[in-house]
Amino acid sequence: MKHLQRDLEQLNKRLLGMSGLVEEMIDQATRALAERREEWAEQVVASDAEVDQQEVQIEEECLKILALHQPVAVDLRRIATVLKANADLERIADLAVSIAERAQAIADSPSFPIPDQLERMVALATQMVRGAMDAFVNLDSAAASRILRLDDTVDALNRDIIAELQTLMQQDPHLVAPALHCFSATRHIERIADHATNIAEDVIYLVEGDIVRHSRRANPERK
Amino acid sequence: MKHLQRDLEQLNKRLLGMSGLVEEMIDQATRALAERREEWAEQVVASDAEVDQQEVQIEEECLKILALHQPVAVDLRRIATVLKANADLERIADLAVSIAERAQAIADSPSFPIPDQLERMVALATQMVRGAMDAFVNLDSAAASRILRLDDTVDALNRDIIAELQTLMQQDPHLVAPALHCFSATRHIERIADHATNIAEDVIYLVEGDIVRHSRRANPERK
Repeated sequence: MKHLQRDLEQLNKRLLGMSGLVEEMIDQATRALAERREEWAEQVVASDAEVDQQEVQIEEECLKILALHQPVAVDLRRIATVLKANADLERIADLAVSIAERAQAIADSPSFPIPDQLERMVALATQMVRGAMDAFVNLDSAAASRILRLDDTVDALNRDIIAELQTLMQQDPHLVAPALHCFSATRHIERIADHATNIAEDVIYLVEGDIVRHSRRANPERK
Repeated sequence: MKHLQRDLEQLNKRLLGMSGLVEEMIDQATRALAERREEWAEQVVASDAEVDQQEVQIEEECLKILALHQPVAVDLRRIATVLKANADLERIADLAVSIAERAQAIADSPSFPIPDQLERMVALATQMVRGAMDAFVNLDSAAASRILRLDDTVDALNRDIIAELQTLMQQDPHLVAPALHCFSATRHIERIADHATNIAEDVIYLVEGDIVRHSRRANPERK
């Protein structure tokens, strides 16, 4: 049993390491966007290969622990949660790559005004990823619940930014192309927040056995 | 051992049942979009609650099989694949809901011309979901590889549709709002195809032990 706990600790460490790399990618992709610096975008693409490798390793590690220790009850559920969070982190990395690609496209339109709120939205999304991972490692469902509430703020910022982009496109046809790239980048950020929400919901389920992941969506007033 | 195989068969059946419902949701969401019929959109939202329930049940079933039979090797990997495909299907259902919501928004703009290729793109994406699930149940990696190739066609259609929408927005500021809704719907369809691709990649990994999911992205010429 002690070996199992040690292996689970080790697994958490690997997952946190991967999360750190993914958060860095989000930060670099945003800088590439906000500061129109293409070298950051290239860095994001380079890191993605590393994340892909780590995802495969963590999945293998999970299967190894399952086969070796045949855990039950809460330990089994912890590993199922790692498998899901692992997949979420990998997709967040893909989204950072997609943001970096949009950044490269927008860099060609120096006159396009990037909405001010985008940086705040990214900062919140990154905070959600970090917070969801910490909540998982600490099995802290209260912290996970706070992540869910942040998602509402991200959604509100998302709506504001889209309204701003729509106005820009209506006023100046030349801005349609860069605004569409920025629209895509905004959606990617929103999806990063959604993945962080998935992780937070899984943590609450893991700790409390409460299925919040669907009830929240079915009852929007609980959001 | 016989019991394990029976439980795995049962699990496959449930997953296929869920996939059938999800495919129906994609079809209804597209009809809501193409035929501007809001009642289809409402139907999609109603089915989503059912998919959410099924996802939770299938996940519980996986954990039960793991705890009860403590499978190893290929059986263990099969269950890990079910857990991932299950999550993919649930997100595809969410995307169908998002498409239905866009359809409701576009219904308010009767003069907005929905790009012709959208229907073909949806048909392909649905075919990919169905094909990926069949490939999984039949453990058919050749069929799964064919799904990966379809994704390239979906990506090409996606690019064409976005170019068309961009032209519409540049020509007529009044079309910016509905075109943005349509742009979102197109991205949702593309993501459905991506999820089907994820499932197909996992099937190839399950059958052949080959990690195609990341090598394809790292070497785009293999696409």
